[in-house]
Amino acid sequence: MEQLAMCPKFESAFQLLGKRWNGLIIRVLLYGPVRFRDISANIPNMSDKMLVDRLKQLEDIGVVKRNVYPETPVRIEYELTDKGRALEPALDEIQAWAEAWVEGPTPQTAEK
Amino acid sequence: MEQLAMCPKFESAFQLLGKRWNGLIIRVLLYGPVRFRDISANIPNMSDKMLVDRLKQLEDIGVVKRNVYPETPVRIEYELTDKGRALEPALDEIQAWAEAWVEGPTPQTAEK
Repeated sequence: MEQLAMCPKFESAFQLLGKRWNGLIIRVLLYGPVRFRDISANIPNMSDKMLVDRLKQLEDIGVVKRNVYPETPVRIEYELTDKGRALEPALDEIQAWAEAWVEGPTPQTAEK
Repeated sequence: MEQLAMCPKFESAFQLLGKRWNGLIIRVLLYGPVRFRDISANIPNMSDKMLVDRLKQLEDIGVVKRNVYPETPVRIEYELTDKGRALEPALDEIQAWAEAWVEGPTPQTAEK
């Protein structure tokens, strides 16, 4: 059997996506620049403290960028970088697999 | 902004793939039925105890099946189910992203 040297890049990509909430946060950000409270509202089971941590880590690895608009009050939005946006095909495949193979209800997205 | 009710299926797919080592184990099994020690040999940083746990969990959710051949000694192989094999496109996309965006060396696979 071909001896597959586990690609460290593949491992670290998995660790990024595998870290709880990261996949969902990136999914929300694929909709475009979003404010903190809108990300939080879309992932109700996650604490704000956790979201602060995750956004900081995603910024550190260049997947997310933080835009500060000097308005009154200051407006802060989070946005995917090109590196972050490039995860969309992987997330789409995971979504497709989940819909085909994971049991359980699929909630309808609600228009706001 | 469209209020995106986080799809529980998407969340549970992420939790599956996100659990440390699962992605790598599935990657190895995509090469075909494999014995325990060959999986273990391909993911050197993971303990055998961890591999036993993960394989049991992957079996419980129907991603992996365990084939026992009544030979002497008994031969046991692990194999992806259809559900497990259907993860290949997602893993390929993650691999492609990792190679394009994650810094660091890419080891060559070695012919045995």
